[in-house]
Amino acid sequence: MNGAQSLIRTLVDAGVDVCFANPGTSEMHFVAALDSAGASDAGGEMRAVLGLAEGVVTGAADGYARIAGKPAATLLHLGPGLGNGLANLHNARRAHTPIVNVIGDHATYHKRYDAPLESDIEAVAGSLGGWVRRSASTADVGADAAAAVAAAQDAPGRVATLILPADVSWGEGGKVCAPVPPRVAKPVPETTIKSVAEVLRTGEPVALLLGGAACRERALRAANRIANATGAKPFIETFPSRLERGAGLPTIERLGYLAEQVAYQLDGVRHVLLAGTRSPVSFFAYPGKASDLVPEGAQVHTLADVDDDVTSALEHLADVVAPGTEPVLAEARRPELPTGELTAQNWVDVIGALLPEGAIISDEAVTSGLLLPAATAGSPRHDVLTLTGGAIGQGIPLATGAAIAAPDRPVVNLESDGSALYTISALWTQARENLNVTTVLLNNRAYAILRMELQRVGAETSGPKANQLLDLSTPDMDFVRIAEGMGVPATRASTAEELAEQFSRALAEPGPHLIDAMVPPIV
Amino acid sequence: MNGAQSLIRTLVDAGVDVCFANPGTSEMHFVAALDSAGASDAGGEMRAVLGLAEGVVTGAADGYARIAGKPAATLLHLGPGLGNGLANLHNARRAHTPIVNVIGDHATYHKRYDAPLESDIEAVAGSLGGWVRRSASTADVGADAAAAVAAAQDAPGRVATLILPADVSWGEGGKVCAPVPPRVAKPVPETTIKSVAEVLRTGEPVALLLGGAACRERALRAANRIANATGAKPFIETFPSRLERGAGLPTIERLGYLAEQVAYQLDGVRHVLLAGTRSPVSFFAYPGKASDLVPEGAQVHTLADVDDDVTSALEHLADVVAPGTEPVLAEARRPELPTGELTAQNWVDVIGALLPEGAIISDEAVTSGLLLPAATAGSPRHDVLTLTGGAIGQGIPLATGAAIAAPDRPVVNLESDGSALYTISALWTQARENLNVTTVLLNNRAYAILRMELQRVGAETSGPKANQLLDLSTPDMDFVRIAEGMGVPATRASTAEELAEQFSRALAEPGPHLIDAMVPPIV
Repeated sequence: MNGAQSLIRTLVDAGVDVCFANPGTSEMHFVAALDSAGASDAGGEMRAVLGLAEGVVTGAADGYARIAGKPAATLLHLGPGLGNGLANLHNARRAHTPIVNVIGDHATYHKRYDAPLESDIEAVAGSLGGWVRRSASTADVGADAAAAVAAAQDAPGRVATLILPADVSWGEGGKVCAPVPPRVAKPVPETTIKSVAEVLRTGEPVALLLGGAACRERALRAANRIANATGAKPFIETFPSRLERGAGLPTIERLGYLAEQVAYQLDGVRHVLLAGTRSPVSFFAYPGKASDLVPEGAQVHTLADVDDDVTSALEHLADVVAPGTEPVLAEARRPELPTGELTAQNWVDVIGALLPEGAIISDEAVTSGLLLPAATAGSPRHDVLTLTGGAIGQGIPLATGAAIAAPDRPVVNLESDGSALYTISALWTQARENLNVTTVLLNNRAYAILRMELQRVGAETSGPKANQLLDLSTPDMDFVRIAEGMGVPATRASTAEELAEQFSRALAEPGPHLIDAMVPPIV
Repeated sequence: MNGAQSLIRTLVDAGVDVCFANPGTSEMHFVAALDSAGASDAGGEMRAVLGLAEGVVTGAADGYARIAGKPAATLLHLGPGLGNGLANLHNARRAHTPIVNVIGDHATYHKRYDAPLESDIEAVAGSLGGWVRRSASTADVGADAAAAVAAAQDAPGRVATLILPADVSWGEGGKVCAPVPPRVAKPVPETTIKSVAEVLRTGEPVALLLGGAACRERALRAANRIANATGAKPFIETFPSRLERGAGLPTIERLGYLAEQVAYQLDGVRHVLLAGTRSPVSFFAYPGKASDLVPEGAQVHTLADVDDDVTSALEHLADVVAPGTEPVLAEARRPELPTGELTAQNWVDVIGALLPEGAIISDEAVTSGLLLPAATAGSPRHDVLTLTGGAIGQGIPLATGAAIAAPDRPVVNLESDGSALYTISALWTQARENLNVTTVLLNNRAYAILRMELQRVGAETSGPKANQLLDLSTPDMDFVRIAEGMGVPATRASTAEELAEQFSRALAEPGPHLIDAMVPPIV
């Protein structure tokens, strides 16, 4: 058994049985081992999914794990391959997504020749602040792989990177290693529950901020009970990794993206309770505005840190402060189907009216999506995956990975023209794998958010060069042709009726579809 | 004057008057300053060119500098933006291309909040081994920018990265700084010329390896004289940054990509003379094959290191060992226009037959391009830009930047389907800027080079999973639609006649064109 074979069998034994790949020469033994490794002792084989750019691979691994609840592997080609995938790994890091990167490197004895692709893989991987290891010998690969899977799944989850030199991969003497248990979420001490309960009993205005696992059903129900019993106001963190919402679940507002929105939301609050999230900060700095969004004079209390068992902590707290209180759940209620020209206001009602049961929304609609939450609050139960790290180019790959993880669920990718081009080739992977992803591409022919930010940062002059850099209309992009060129059937919608008809049809047919939804900028 | 304004005026004063940009919020003051900075004391303004993905931006900056002979700036958004651009910066590093990256960062006081886009920019930039500096205050920005431009142009050229915090950019008190002279190429000592001349006079077989500036006309003529007078065999390094060739210039063979080719080319050589390049090594390691490609027993001598003045050294050496010898120059000679089905063999003859005078070729044809050099040896004089660092996804952006640098020259981008998707949105930038780039996309519906490498690394089993990962035919990509979707007129060629007709027409019309050239894999 060679190193690559031991790696694949160890990964599959540990439950990592999907690998998103964009390989090169130094990964060819891994590629060959996909066939020759055979099934693992745990009974499975590795499924390999090809991406045509590394940002597709890393974004898909992120989307997969957010839905599957376990890591996928990536297979990338030295430092440049990892670099190309870095932005979506940044988003994954902020989502606390478990990912096992396998980065091929030159053979150990080849590195000193500084061949053209020689690169500082450790520096690039290290920038993610996760777990990084280089396999030193073929006999170590299995143990290193098991350690990587565990490291990725250590609560709350992180990016683990295993660097695999080509000769370590092709050498004989590989040993399959049994799975290593990851570090689980820490229980929250009774004393913390009690002291937080005291805060809630003061009667002073409290904001309860929910993040990470606290955005899932059990925790949401507990948080809603706490809020109903104590008057605390619950909020979801601005960009949750995975938020469960819709009819039958509590409706909890998300903190806004803009500091001004958060100031409004938290106005008058005296205590901020953190449950699986960090203290709120401004996404960017703006001249003369605060970075720390905790209202002046308010106290911050931590119920559960990001690596704590926030779900049990919230349930325990609810039993203490809200015994007998039931959660209030959203009723099934959809917006009317709108009519007329498609706008940034009415397209969300089409989604809200037609969103199917059990949908997964990959949300990268940016400014076009500001009104989405209200329109879908009473739609059938669904998951929303958001842009956790702020690095655009996440949406299409994330939807791709989510659809691999949940082939029986409809995936709806709400995408924007400004964000789509970073990783557009993920559409090809959707076509290749025949994934049930419907992409609604909000095409406003601008980096609309930057038009807004240009004003917000106080850049008073907004001359022709600046405006031209934020304009995507010369030439207009035709996403119907782009999608069709990658094997994804596509249509264009300019009215609400067209969007409704095309969205319904796309959901009814298997495989991927794209709708080029022509909207004016909301800002 | 704010920091951003002082930055732009300092850059333009130093001759850096093109900026390839993919900005975000932290770069909005730089964007605003494009208009408000006004003209520099040197008289110019900054031209900003938008790319829709960072790999487009960095590859375009590389292509620009290879042709312009001076750096462009890039404008990128924090660590994720730099990461997305890393692969093409890796190629630029290997090409010794001068580039000035401007990477926006959070405001200095905002960093401690670890906002979502907080990232380790220094680690990512540092992986390139170039020059990295963070501007600490607005008053420093001008001097930092002047230092960055000089660092980028220090012989032989490198990637310089200036990190610009948002508040340093928007703060008042910016000072324009005069250009700083870069470190020029070192003269080669007389003693080195003499000792190399002695080697050439031994009469033993000598290979003269040319790289960097030695791939330009003056040096090529000198090398050809040396070869003709002494019997030394000259070779161009495998992947030159910029090679001048065609009718009226010496024809000098390139070292092969495969170790076996190089072994054949250097067979029997007793001395390897390095002129502006490094000792030849295998691109990748292969089981049981050597990494060092210098023939056993041969001695390596350095005439000029990569940061030496190799052109003067070669001319001086030619005057010593080849006085009175004239260079032998390629005669104008074109292949016959082929007919019939398009193949990996005959498409190159179409290019050779029709290549216009003064063309710039961005060559990322990979396996499809193996026969190109012979077919174009007698075509009109042209430049060839190659994949210096081996990180695919370079070709379309490189052509884009080259066309910005030389708007009056025809740019021909020989591209491959496997490489195109990494940075396909560079086509949109070509359309927006109306650049004279003709892309011939060799579409063999496979990662053909990896099919070859899968065998070469000794991965004996080649099962269905491995084969599927190297296959790009399910679904076939339609590059005509993809290009049209990005605003570039496109056609498809399946015969040599169609390619000839379409290539001629594309060259005759202004603006970008793409030809989807359907060829079978050569391997």
